[in-house]
Amino acid sequence: MDYSERLQTLLSEMKLDGRYRTFAELERIAGEFPTALRHRPDGRTQRVTVWCSNDYLGMGQHPDVLNAMHTAIDLSGAGTGGTRNISGTNRQHVALESELADLHGKEAALIFTSGWISNLAALGTLGRVLPDCAIFSDALNHNSMIEGIRRSGAERFIFRHNDAAHLDELISGIDPSRPKIVAFESVYSMDGDIAPIAEICDVAEKHGAITYLDEVHAVGLYGPGGGGIAERDGLAERLTIIEGTLAKAFGVMGGYVSGPALLIDVIRSMADSFIFTTSLCPHLAAGALAAIQHVRQHPEERGRQAANAARLKAMLADEGLPVLDTPSHILPVIVGNAHLCRRISERLLDEHSIYVQPINYPTVARGQERLRITPTPFHTEDHMRSLVDALLAVGSDLGWAAVPQVA
Amino acid sequence: MDYSERLQTLLSEMKLDGRYRTFAELERIAGEFPTALRHRPDGRTQRVTVWCSNDYLGMGQHPDVLNAMHTAIDLSGAGTGGTRNISGTNRQHVALESELADLHGKEAALIFTSGWISNLAALGTLGRVLPDCAIFSDALNHNSMIEGIRRSGAERFIFRHNDAAHLDELISGIDPSRPKIVAFESVYSMDGDIAPIAEICDVAEKHGAITYLDEVHAVGLYGPGGGGIAERDGLAERLTIIEGTLAKAFGVMGGYVSGPALLIDVIRSMADSFIFTTSLCPHLAAGALAAIQHVRQHPEERGRQAANAARLKAMLADEGLPVLDTPSHILPVIVGNAHLCRRISERLLDEHSIYVQPINYPTVARGQERLRITPTPFHTEDHMRSLVDALLAVGSDLGWAAVPQVA
Ligand SMILES: Cc1ncc(COP(=O)(O)O)c(C=O)c1O
Ligand SMILES: Cc1ncc(COP(=O)(O)O)c(C=O)c1O
Repeated sequence: MDYSERLQTLLSEMKLDGRYRTFAELERIAGEFPTALRHRPDGRTQRVTVWCSNDYLGMGQHPDVLNAMHTAIDLSGAGTGGTRNISGTNRQHVALESELADLHGKEAALIFTSGWISNLAALGTLGRVLPDCAIFSDALNHNSMIEGIRRSGAERFIFRHNDAAHLDELISGIDPSRPKIVAFESVYSMDGDIAPIAEICDVAEKHGAITYLDEVHAVGLYGPGGGGIAERDGLAERLTIIEGTLAKAFGVMGGYVSGPALLIDVIRSMADSFIFTTSLCPHLAAGALAAIQHVRQHPEERGRQAANAARLKAMLADEGLPVLDTPSHILPVIVGNAHLCRRISERLLDEHSIYVQPINYPTVARGQERLRITPTPFHTEDHMRSLVDALLAVGSDLGWAAVPQVA
Repeated sequence: MDYSERLQTLLSEMKLDGRYRTFAELERIAGEFPTALRHRPDGRTQRVTVWCSNDYLGMGQHPDVLNAMHTAIDLSGAGTGGTRNISGTNRQHVALESELADLHGKEAALIFTSGWISNLAALGTLGRVLPDCAIFSDALNHNSMIEGIRRSGAERFIFRHNDAAHLDELISGIDPSRPKIVAFESVYSMDGDIAPIAEICDVAEKHGAITYLDEVHAVGLYGPGGGGIAERDGLAERLTIIEGTLAKAFGVMGGYVSGPALLIDVIRSMADSFIFTTSLCPHLAAGALAAIQHVRQHPEERGRQAANAARLKAMLADEGLPVLDTPSHILPVIVGNAHLCRRISERLLDEHSIYVQPINYPTVARGQERLRITPTPFHTEDHMRSLVDALLAVGSDLGWAAVPQVA
């Protein structure tokens, strides 16, 4: 059987579609974020300004984080050499789990090697062990939640994005005695919009459903302690489980869930994707702990990020660039065509040393292709001006900015 | 709906069964492996000898690895802040992927945040995109391969463990024109036995099947360059894909697949579990690269490990302890009862400062509960003598060693 032809065809289709991904090879330079070195295919290097990082606060280069990692490496070495159960639980994991539980006001927390795995493990397990469970999932939920729900084998109901009334309608339609989980996000990563958490909790509570909130793009960024949108809006205790990542605003890698001790213990005890894998390196847990402690004490940094996001959004809109008016730090500039999106991005990089990766299908729906811009506290007024000017120049060259529209 | 009762019951059943896991809280001490500090539930600490780590060569504390990590942290910071596609591909990833491809003599390699994810992503994707694919899976394959096969939606056929004839029988039974994948391991983690790779390749080649070999417990440990059992036996090029981990003999964390450029590109382009997650920290890639380079140049360290494994196996067998006569570095001592296994382990830890985690269901079948002992180059003759004496003392106390049997 010659499979090569079939696979070649798949890749050719992606290329024709504009969906084939070429990774930009970067070299992060600690202390100079958002500047990075790009290693070009021709072997030369180029200094670029990164405008599409999820290291939202630059914690990935913060001295507190790096020092904590250095110290933990000197103390405990590199990997753990074991799964959590078999010699792989370290003091640093235990300390981080207790900090995370505290951050979200929950009884317990459990860490994973990524946020992706935390959603797979938690939803996959709860949906499976609760007999005849029904999971209600927002239409725009992240791939990792969808994979968890699929893995659980539970019946899945999809409610319209951010539509609590539709959720209520769906949930009212099933046998009230069935266990139910409502799974959604706070800040949606690609659109930058925010869920109506209180209304969704109202519906869930009315029907006795477990609420599962992914705060991956909100932890560290919202709320007095950086606990996320639920904390900001005083709703954290209405959420049964809050899930997050250590890899975005906290600048390291890994993911977690926090919630009632009983549920967390069930996930810990029964999730294959947690049980059968080497645990997170101790120094990563130590780095994440330092990041969280820093972020809890320094709301002014997320304040600067928010101010920069507002400033840049105004600048983009003023020039008629099609930026979505989001209530978060995420600024999607809609292009609507995969090839055009890729070409704009390439020109920004090659001619203006500005790096914004094109976001195409399957990350967003076709026709929704975009540049997703994420200002940090480290982007200056000059960076912003250069970005706007470059977008205008490239846009007019490619016949894109010629049809500006504020969506 | 009150789910608490149901979940409480699940956990109580695990406790009754002896399956409920209590994690030993350790503090690894770089430079003193296999000694570690145990943080006891009563708050006191205790120095223990670890006998169940998969940091098989102690690379998790090797100066080359730690220095590479320190340097990369100083240079590039902590996390990448992005998925591989969106600002998360770094120079260190590219360098590691090229080293891994070279290690296994393959065209290309792709890294993941864990070995677990690499199996999920690779098998999950290939089994899904090859139309009407059939996957032939060894009966003792690791959970991560099983999850990948399940996720692929491909039809699964399970062949008896290490039984090439049974594989041939099953594979002969299906339409010869269907795409086929044969998935198996080289060193089986819990039994320490080794697959008949050449015979399995004979069968696969006869039927035109893709071969997928998990060398997680063999990379770094076998073969002139540490490429695994396939390299040792001169079979690497007969395997289509070789999968491995960075978290065991290489001492860090992360996983990978290596193989033909086309297949690797398909996985890179289509595996959700690769696409939708933050990439590995650059310094972890740098540490793993240093480990691989070291291991390739220092076969004497795996030689010392093999000698220690042989020495300890002889000592255990001499005393009539039920150690399996494995052809690898893994020494399973069979107990056969979950509660007894746990009690032996607890007594070893509390009374003899020896840490060997009990291996119970679901990691092994019920009735197959065991202590899984992994000698490293750093375990001394004294460590071995103490382990054997402690096993004899605890065993006779608990009425276990009274019925010695060499299995
Ligand atoms: C909403 C959401 N959840 C989960 C994840 C996965 O988190 P991680 O990158 O830590 O795997 C992501 C993105 O990566 C995300 O956007
Ligand atoms: C055979 C096998 N494959 C894959 C894995 C997963 O590797 P990792 O720990 O890097 O996730 C393991 C164990 O953890 C394993 O034993």
